[in-house]
This record gives sequence, C-alpha cells and structure tokens, in this order.
Amino acid sequence: MSDQCIFCGIINGAIPSAKVYEDEATYAFMDINPASEGHLLVIPKRHSKDLLEIPTEDLAAVTATAQKIARQVVGELGADGVNLLNCCGADAWQTVFHFHLHVIPRYRDKGKDKLVLPWQPDVPGDKDTIVAVAKRLSDALA
Amino acid sequence: MSDQCIFCGIINGAIPSAKVYEDEATYAFMDINPASEGHLLVIPKRHSKDLLEIPTEDLAAVTATAQKIARQVVGELGADGVNLLNCCGADAWQTVFHFHLHVIPRYRDKGKDKLVLPWQPDVPGDKDTIVAVAKRLSDALA
Ligand SMILES: [Zn+2]
Ligand SMILES: [Zn+2]
Repeated sequence: MSDQCIFCGIINGAIPSAKVYEDEATYAFMDINPASEGHLLVIPKRHSKDLLEIPTEDLAAVTATAQKIARQVVGELGADGVNLLNCCGADAWQTVFHFHLHVIPRYRDKGKDKLVLPWQPDVPGDKDTIVAVAKRLSDALA
Repeated sequence: MSDQCIFCGIINGAIPSAKVYEDEATYAFMDINPASEGHLLVIPKRHSKDLLEIPTEDLAAVTATAQKIARQVVGELGADGVNLLNCCGADAWQTVFHFHLHVIPRYRDKGKDKLVLPWQPDVPGDKDTIVAVAKRLSDALA
C-alpha cells in the first residue's frame, strides 16, 4: 500500500466508494466520472503502479474479476457490449497510479453511451514500418 | 478453430501476418490498420468469440503475453505509455469475432500517435444512478 494513493485508500476504507465486488486479490467499484452507465474499475488490492509493474498473478486476478463483472454487465444491466481498457502511463491517459482496468458497458442507446472510437480503424498503416516494428519486438521477445 | 475465422487462419498460417510473439496458448501480430506505431493484437490460439466466452485461463495467458510485450513496447520501441483495449460485441467496436486484446503503444510525439480519449473523463455521473447500478451488479455477483 502507498500512503499517497487514493485507490489504496478506497481498498482500506479510508476513502468511500460504490463497491461492486471484492475478493482476496481484487476490488471493483464504480467510476465517478463514467464514460457510460455502469462504468467501473477493477484494481488489485496489492499496490502496483501500472501494467509494467503489476505481478502477472495480480493481472490475471484483475482480468478474471473484470470478466466475471462483464458477464453481469451484459446479463444484469442489459449492456449490448463491453470494453476493457487499461491506461499505462500519463501519456496513455493514466491519471491514478495504482493499476486499474476500466470495465465500460456499451449500449446501442446513445443516451447511455457517448463513447467514440479513439482512432480510425479503416486507415491502413505503412507496411514497411509495420514489418520493421514487428521484427524489433519479435527479436526483443525471443 | 472456426473455419470462417480470419484469426484462426492467421494462427494456422493460412493467412499471413507480421508475427511478434507466440507461445503455447497465445499469438501476437501487428494490426494492419494501426492506431499508433507498433499497434498489435494478442489472441488465444484456442478460438473464443469474445470476453464473455473465453476460458479464464486463456484470458490470463493473453494478458500475460500482452504485459510481456508492453514492457518491450516501452523498453525497445521507446513508447511513452501503452493502452490495452478489448472490444466485446459489435456495439463495443468488435469487428473480428475471435477474442483479441489490442496493445497500443502511446507516444508524446503526436506524429506517431493520433489517439483521442473516447470519453470526457472530467464529467461526473449522476450519483443516484451510480449507486443503483453498483447495487444491481453487487447483488448479481454476490
Ligand atoms: Zn495504491
Ligand atoms: Zn478464431
């Protein structure tokens, strides 16, 4: 736990939250600035700053909890779909530096869902760049 | 494996891809319509349609691979951050119905990175709705 961390404060009860679910390793609560109705966050109870730092077992626990909740988001809230989003680093929109996975219910009803796709999915990339980057990553991971 | 599935075709080699990484349970390759330089996808080798359907162990394997690659995206490509995104359902921007996790490198250099946050993060939600939804989900998960 980190003294300065608001999510550690939520886990230990010092900061109130609208709790959705909790198990040994994870805690889930509503986002107070929701992207859509039912937008919530899943966090590990053990403090980790971000995706680069979180132990793989905590990451697995967080995603398992997110999946469990996603099924209820569809089954119970009647969402038409779900997005999971992790933001790692300030340049990737991370604002609280305790790992968290966004679970964002999606609706055909645009009154409940104002999200816009963050990129243009139909624009092909430069083939040479793609192949070069694949090689760099592939070599680094070999 | 599904006959009609292009990602199953990529895994079995019938459809070419720029491969980044592969292990027993997962396969990673470049997105041909990248949101940013280095945008790639991690998929389970076993076919699952989406987040609701994927076995939890495959989900854990996919996220572990995504984390491994995210570290190289920062360490090797020099990205300033990373986003992980899953789209579950056509209404959540899913277009290929074989589970996939987007790994999206992020850059301060906006020449490499044209992403825009898909919602307004500073707009508070309605408190009563948030509490009511938390209760519905929490009851469903209890
Ligand atoms: Zn914390
Ligand atoms: Zn498939």
